Amino acid sequence: MNQQQLFQQIQKKRSFLCVGLDSDIQKIPQYLLTIEDPLFEFNKEIIDATAEFTVAYKPNLAFYESLGAEGWTSLEKTVKYLKTEHPEIFIIADAKRGDIGNTSSLYARAFFETLDFDAVTVAPYMGEDSVKPFMLYDEKWVILLALTSNKGAFDFQFLKDETSGDLLFESVLKISQNWGNEENMMYVVGATKAEKLTKIRKIVPNHFLLVPGVGAQGGSLQEVSKYGMNSKCGLLVNSSRGIIYVSNGEDFAEKAGEAAKEIQREMEVLLNEAGLL
Amino acid sequence: MNQQQLFQQIQKKRSFLCVGLDSDIQKIPQYLLTIEDPLFEFNKEIIDATAEFTVAYKPNLAFYESLGAEGWTSLEKTVKYLKTEHPEIFIIADAKRGDIGNTSSLYARAFFETLDFDAVTVAPYMGEDSVKPFMLYDEKWVILLALTSNKGAFDFQFLKDETSGDLLFESVLKISQNWGNEENMMYVVGATKAEKLTKIRKIVPNHFLLVPGVGAQGGSLQEVSKYGMNSKCGLLVNSSRGIIYVSNGEDFAEKAGEAAKEIQREMEVLLNEAGLL
Repeated sequence: MNQQQLFQQIQKKRSFLCVGLDSDIQKIPQYLLTIEDPLFEFNKEIIDATAEFTVAYKPNLAFYESLGAEGWTSLEKTVKYLKTEHPEIFIIADAKRGDIGNTSSLYARAFFETLDFDAVTVAPYMGEDSVKPFMLYDEKWVILLALTSNKGAFDFQFLKDETSGDLLFESVLKISQNWGNEENMMYVVGATKAEKLTKIRKIVPNHFLLVPGVGAQGGSLQEVSKYGMNSKCGLLVNSSRGIIYVSNGEDFAEKAGEAAKEIQREMEVLLNEAGLL
Repeated sequence: MNQQQLFQQIQKKRSFLCVGLDSDIQKIPQYLLTIEDPLFEFNKEIIDATAEFTVAYKPNLAFYESLGAEGWTSLEKTVKYLKTEHPEIFIIADAKRGDIGNTSSLYARAFFETLDFDAVTVAPYMGEDSVKPFMLYDEKWVILLALTSNKGAFDFQFLKDETSGDLLFESVLKISQNWGNEENMMYVVGATKAEKLTKIRKIVPNHFLLVPGVGAQGGSLQEVSKYGMNSKCGLLVNSSRGIIYVSNGEDFAEKAGEAAKEIQREMEVLLNEAGLL
């Protein structure tokens, strides 16, 4: 999927919501555990209930790997289900991979060939040759970690480079501009504060940003939109627990649908205000 | 496995060699492809031929993930085979994971519970809460990326912090000292130059270092030993392609054994010179 097609989906669904499929076998409704592939069944029902309000899904690999080969099978089935039943959806492997060049090529093969993801999150620590192999695929995307939303973000991401005066996450945004472009790179930006988002948008005005930590984790959707939106929306805002774990009963999918719809409504207002619909 | 036990293995085998199981379905001998699980068969034969000369194996996850669930099954079988047939071996998941706290917990579950690895490589970019969940397991290890051996290492790892004057990889070494200790942390250090290793050993005198890039990639084992060894050896030196792909024929395992033996002999001399045997 290219940038224009993603923007068209945002306009069509009046939403820039990404649903995080952090599907934990220990947290999904217990009655699903009697079914053959509980994780896939959980995902399938969540997807069917929320796809109308959603432009992207983001399975986090850790939750599937924790079950070994079996979890990978659930993941493969989830991606195949999305590609067949909801081919308009943008699918992100939240994998935070990154290794030396020839090894990153294998990760790219895993996520873009063996599985048919549209994008994969990549950690920047190992630099250019660890990121570029993911960019060799047409209409596939790297989503590079820049500023994450966790407490540990403060350990290294805010170290200030003596020469440029840039914080580490700013260096990541700037230096990686030489590796790709707005058609094959996005950034993870866990910022919900006006000041930081404004500064980030000065460095990457046209790139899409994947924003975690809105909703359940307390970030403000209004603030993110006001300071982060660009002429093609340029935002995918993720919510995981705030959608998929609203109910732990048999109505879990219905409740997830309601939660997604509520966010979509709010996003529609924001897109309208920005004149993007 | 704890540090003392690892050192004992090093003394017993007179080797600090780690064999990287970067087993690529496109590179292993073609005749294996007719067998049911070629990747496992390849690993099994490599292991049997090299275990005598080796204290650690390090499957790189990318090579297994590139085959999806099937690859994970090969990996699971490899780890189980090692634990059963060669229980003295230290097994490293070269996975370069790292995510927010609750997600890293799931990765830890994947590698230390679902699979029975002794250690996992972790990327530092997301900071403390992305690393600590891996340290909650007794006698399991985090191997944190500090200085990698690839070209991209120069993109960010050498940025100099304005306040401390430390390069980023030095900040990683220093700050992470607060998260764990020499019994649950090691570091990936792709340095083969005397000056850098000496500086690194000043920061982490007692930790084990996992050193890639020696041998096939041109690093000098002598140099690494001279400037990197400590009183418990403190080094695991990895070789992948230089061992597992020496021959592409039916003698691949035999040739791998010979290559491993050659390195072991060299290591024995170095351990002797250091008075550690």
